Amino acid sequence: MMASCKIIDKEQLSNLSFVLKKPLEVGFQERPKPSIQDQHDVLVAIGRTGICGSDVHYWEHGSIGRFVVSKPMVLGHESAGIVVEAGSASGFQPGDRVAIEPGRWCGRCGDCQSGHYNLCKDMIFAATPPYDGTLTGVWCAPAACLNRLPDGVSLDEGALVEPLAVAVHAIRLAGDGVRPGRSMVVLGAGPVGLLCAAVARAYGASPIVVVDVNAKRLEFAKTMASCATHTYLTRADKAPKEAAEQIAASAGLGQGADTVIEASGAQPSIQTGVLAVRPGGSYVQVGMGGAEARLPMMELCIKEVTMRGSFRYSSGDFALAVALISQGRVNVKQLISERVSFDRAEEAFAKVKRGEGIKLVIAGPNDDVCD
Amino acid sequence: MMASCKIIDKEQLSNLSFVLKKPLEVGFQERPKPSIQDQHDVLVAIGRTGICGSDVHYWEHGSIGRFVVSKPMVLGHESAGIVVEAGSASGFQPGDRVAIEPGRWCGRCGDCQSGHYNLCKDMIFAATPPYDGTLTGVWCAPAACLNRLPDGVSLDEGALVEPLAVAVHAIRLAGDGVRPGRSMVVLGAGPVGLLCAAVARAYGASPIVVVDVNAKRLEFAKTMASCATHTYLTRADKAPKEAAEQIAASAGLGQGADTVIEASGAQPSIQTGVLAVRPGGSYVQVGMGGAEARLPMMELCIKEVTMRGSFRYSSGDFALAVALISQGRVNVKQLISERVSFDRAEEAFAKVKRGEGIKLVIAGPNDDVCD
Amino acid sequence: MMASCKIIDKEQLSNLSFVLKKPLEVGFQERPKPSIQDQHDVLVAIGRTGICGSDVHYWEHGSIGRFVVSKPMVLGHESAGIVVEAGSASGFQPGDRVAIEPGRWCGRCGDCQSGHYNLCKDMIFAATPPYDGTLTGVWCAPAACLNRLPDGVSLDEGALVEPLAVAVHAIRLAGDGVRPGRSMVVLGAGPVGLLCAAVARAYGASPIVVVDVNAKRLEFAKTMASCATHTYLTRADKAPKEAAEQIAASAGLGQGADTVIEASGAQPSIQTGVLAVRPGGSYVQVGMGGAEARLPMMELCIKEVTMRGSFRYSSGDFALAVALISQGRVNVKQLISERVSFDRAEEAFAKVKRGEGIKLVIAGPNDDVCD
Amino acid sequence: MMASCKIIDKEQLSNLSFVLKKPLEVGFQERPKPSIQDQHDVLVAIGRTGICGSDVHYWEHGSIGRFVVSKPMVLGHESAGIVVEAGSASGFQPGDRVAIEPGRWCGRCGDCQSGHYNLCKDMIFAATPPYDGTLTGVWCAPAACLNRLPDGVSLDEGALVEPLAVAVHAIRLAGDGVRPGRSMVVLGAGPVGLLCAAVARAYGASPIVVVDVNAKRLEFAKTMASCATHTYLTRADKAPKEAAEQIAASAGLGQGADTVIEASGAQPSIQTGVLAVRPGGSYVQVGMGGAEARLPMMELCIKEVTMRGSFRYSSGDFALAVALISQGRVNVKQLISERVSFDRAEEAFAKVKRGEGIKLVIAGPNDDVCD
Repeated sequence: MMASCKIIDKEQLSNLSFVLKKPLEVGFQERPKPSIQDQHDVLVAIGRTGICGSDVHYWEHGSIGRFVVSKPMVLGHESAGIVVEAGSASGFQPGDRVAIEPGRWCGRCGDCQSGHYNLCKDMIFAATPPYDGTLTGVWCAPAACLNRLPDGVSLDEGALVEPLAVAVHAIRLAGDGVRPGRSMVVLGAGPVGLLCAAVARAYGASPIVVVDVNAKRLEFAKTMASCATHTYLTRADKAPKEAAEQIAASAGLGQGADTVIEASGAQPSIQTGVLAVRPGGSYVQVGMGGAEARLPMMELCIKEVTMRGSFRYSSGDFALAVALISQGRVNVKQLISERVSFDRAEEAFAKVKRGEGIKLVIAGPNDDVCD
Repeated sequence: MMASCKIIDKEQLSNLSFVLKKPLEVGFQERPKPSIQDQHDVLVAIGRTGICGSDVHYWEHGSIGRFVVSKPMVLGHESAGIVVEAGSASGFQPGDRVAIEPGRWCGRCGDCQSGHYNLCKDMIFAATPPYDGTLTGVWCAPAACLNRLPDGVSLDEGALVEPLAVAVHAIRLAGDGVRPGRSMVVLGAGPVGLLCAAVARAYGASPIVVVDVNAKRLEFAKTMASCATHTYLTRADKAPKEAAEQIAASAGLGQGADTVIEASGAQPSIQTGVLAVRPGGSYVQVGMGGAEARLPMMELCIKEVTMRGSFRYSSGDFALAVALISQGRVNVKQLISERVSFDRAEEAFAKVKRGEGIKLVIAGPNDDVCD
Repeated sequence: MMASCKIIDKEQLSNLSFVLKKPLEVGFQERPKPSIQDQHDVLVAIGRTGICGSDVHYWEHGSIGRFVVSKPMVLGHESAGIVVEAGSASGFQPGDRVAIEPGRWCGRCGDCQSGHYNLCKDMIFAATPPYDGTLTGVWCAPAACLNRLPDGVSLDEGALVEPLAVAVHAIRLAGDGVRPGRSMVVLGAGPVGLLCAAVARAYGASPIVVVDVNAKRLEFAKTMASCATHTYLTRADKAPKEAAEQIAASAGLGQGADTVIEASGAQPSIQTGVLAVRPGGSYVQVGMGGAEARLPMMELCIKEVTMRGSFRYSSGDFALAVALISQGRVNVKQLISERVSFDRAEEAFAKVKRGEGIKLVIAGPNDDVCD
Repeated sequence: MMASCKIIDKEQLSNLSFVLKKPLEVGFQERPKPSIQDQHDVLVAIGRTGICGSDVHYWEHGSIGRFVVSKPMVLGHESAGIVVEAGSASGFQPGDRVAIEPGRWCGRCGDCQSGHYNLCKDMIFAATPPYDGTLTGVWCAPAACLNRLPDGVSLDEGALVEPLAVAVHAIRLAGDGVRPGRSMVVLGAGPVGLLCAAVARAYGASPIVVVDVNAKRLEFAKTMASCATHTYLTRADKAPKEAAEQIAASAGLGQGADTVIEASGAQPSIQTGVLAVRPGGSYVQVGMGGAEARLPMMELCIKEVTMRGSFRYSSGDFALAVALISQGRVNVKQLISERVSFDRAEEAFAKVKRGEGIKLVIAGPNDDVCD
């Protein structure tokens, strides 16, 4: 693949960016190109970017929790591209294809030094106000934020590394609860929920019950790399206790699942999830919903549930995500329902908002650099 | 001490029991004495019993959550006494002074065999309907439920081993978060909260901030074996975010406490607790409050808090509780505000209900066996 | 299968046993049949028994370490059979097909209660002096020692559950070091080494390099359920450092393997293993060799290797072994090189001693009860 | 203290250095002063330096394992001093008193990013060939390598932070095995062994048996902040099995210690240590001895001992060491048997070689900057 790479002239690259000005008002801007600041820095021409629910949420509402868009911000943070310039100590070469880790941590605080850079309070994260995102032409990042794509892994797959890293991180937080002989319930069959199920499958967990209110998504969960062994169709108004019991019964889980991954953020789903964990089991909250949630706290106590919040990803997660794709353990291609050109980005956002497809990928603006 | 032990004649022992008939209606009954069923069984004459909040709750309301008193039930589960008869394989001798672990687990299920017998679904637990408690004359238990009190540990202290084991268990669930160099916030300065702080101190944690709405309890927290390094007086109507910030500021905790132990079960306290944990920190829920609670779920996610429910105690907790008392690391004597005689049990319950004192201990009915 | 089960008359069953009298002197004896002592006990007619290296070692030498055969002892501990009588609280029924866990632990000590019953000092273990083994007609065990074989799992496979549980236990001791994205080196391609590789594969680990001095065994490792991704042929006289470097290079392991499983017990292999672990990696010793071994201790320190001894199996290992077979994740059938009849047991021992085949299984003496 | 700090003129500071030229040949050299390379860098005037066994070993032998002194090298790596110049992003100010972490890790590799920078293969470590040490006038280090000494912690104590961090790291590797209710055996009563015992005491472990061949050191172990609860005097020629049994018996350890810390590196002590661990317990090797050691491997297996090599320190260890001194939990002052002036450095090395005293501290060359 690298053999077919054109010689890349940085000067000729576009730096066209897809910018959120205010809620529901977006546009394209040619922004000044970044340049390397440090011998570890690398410039990447952006070739593919997946659209995340949080991008769409900023587009619609202009904020998520305490993060408020108060000046124009470039959207996007699920990107892959091609190295166009590489600092002398970066270990990269022009032409290398890479998946981009969209956060830049300080590297010096206690959290960074103990492997939890996702908790770094000085994190600069793409498309999280006030920082610009990756739906742009050229991106500058330190080598530590770039993950080389092996031959055989496409740029499209590269754009899926970021959400897969979110799933990898959530599964790793579940610890020993995800392995052969252990059962799992995944609540929410959006991209992250599906990827959690797929990663759990790669870890050997079984059975894996995927739960959603949307029958089509469940159908997809069963077919997509067979990530779900069982599915359960729920309703928003179903009593959590009843749902939890039926979920457990559907897969012979006895007292409940060893691990529950909540990937929807919806209130009834959270309740259901805690009720569906077996005594001594784990619950990981990876779906981001409202600021508050009601929990069946007495059940959580009596069953000694371990509940963990999962936030983005940290040391090793991207590398594992790339390995899972490269080894054929997780098939992310199947998630891509459509690839649209850069100029149709707004249209793509509208589709995601309407719930069409699983994952949309935007090509460009520099997707023509390699082919 | 054993030297001064009278020869105990089982036949002459009372089996007078303090029985809850219906809410707020209690009485004394002479019950048939139990007898040894197995070579591992032991009969214990009850000498001291502490009153727990759950005893008082059953007395007042007749139920806790799904546990409903539907026939007369002997109250009490924090007891110490003297062995009067010992099965041949029990390893005990008449005259041995023991703290009683009030639950009897099946020993064969997966939970029992992996050290989590508190999760055993066939658990028979004293004074939890439909099972009778330990405010009785003679108690039969397998040797595994009895913990020998070393010389120098009194029966009064023996009655405090059970609540101390609750605290030991909660602290152990917090894992590596309780050790030198790690900070703790304990919400609720009742017996369990105070004992959690004391155990954390024995583990080397510092600073330890104890929080309550009652200034007297906080004063006690500072003086009692210096278990609190700092205290914070809150109000039921204080905004959780403000309370959390002030708690952190009071002890220089920076981004929050390494570990929070919630020992009150109160809604605002739960909110405050989650907000008071540092990113990557742990929260243990040991206080049993309402069936549901509202949680700041987004904060829990973004900070990747690990929340664990703590329920009773399991393998090793009683032994460690006895060791902490015996080694002088936790001073439980100070918690005992009053010792009352068996015939005044109802009066003692009323005092606890009114919030008088920290821990009341009932002597008898067979406290005269040893002296 | 159970449908075709004959009505089993316990009285008519043979209790013919294969007895080691002194080194290299064995014989058959009709022994008195055991009977149920407790409502949890179960009687099992033995249908299949695998031969373990330790059985052969006792046969040849009369002892292993501190365990010395000083009176005639029935050999065998890898058995499966059919329930012929079941205590009322056992949860079993006559006709149930089961794999037998050959140790009987006390259930009351700290090790037993914390999930480590393999460390119980009162363990009664089959074919470990002075206790008789399972190459007998009828075996009595508590229900906790029996694992029901699901439909679709044969008795032959049932006899392999025991060595598979040894592998499961070793892999579990390696903790987080065995999962997708983690590499493994297995030293020794005997049954336990092969099964360790197979279990690691089920856990998602990759690459997995299997090392042996025997090219045929390596060939088998690659073909048997593809448990090895790479193999390395070593020699007994190869310098450990050179071997370690070549092993790492063979699979692109960089600074070494995340996890090394030593399943041979041979001195040069132990040295090689420690040198083959990456900094911060884990080494599990599951092969039992001489009483002492020389270790590259400075390397172990500088690399902060975690070395763990693995001994038999404990809570949950048999259940997982059965699940791995039942779910088709580990193919143990391929390990069985030959099945011989009970009367040819000595001949089978001689074959194993000569290194013929991978795993020999003895049928009988009651293999005709079900078919 | 800072109030009394003289205005420090970097130009007037000496950069006199204590240099090892070849085995047993040392001398003083005025070296060029380092300067700040980065906004996170800090210059420190060296005030105190402790002498480590490894310094003396290089002095005598010119090498340790694969590390060979092939050109003149400044010795010393246990230093504290005063900031004389601070980069703009360092967070330090001239006059700050600091303990120096003597290694400089890359910060970008997987080990660094997961909290294990002690395993970084690009580590630049003071007084480890080919890198110069801290027995010099002015030292340049990034802020992440400096730990501010709180008021009340002296520079003498600051020089002991490094060996205390070694002990902290070893204790942390022992995990849950060091806490109230857990026992410990420390083999070797040199500075690191004593500090391990002291840290274990701060963690609440008890009993703690310190073992050595030198009765005076044992006496010191009992008196120094009471870090040992028991001591055991052994001999180099005592049979390890006998020694292990007597050690266990001396403190009522039953089947052995929960944790053994081997801090001597001596062959018989390593054997004794493995034999002294209880089944399921942990052994940490912190003493660096010969390249190889003989281990009782079968015992290690049967008991499922977890053995870990401990190497230097990593994320959080220095901070905890400073906190332990500052909170009065570990009294390092008592370890300092003598403080000698910089010009008498060689004499001090000779004393350490002869085994005189516990820890010698060299003052200077810039100890007069603050007073």
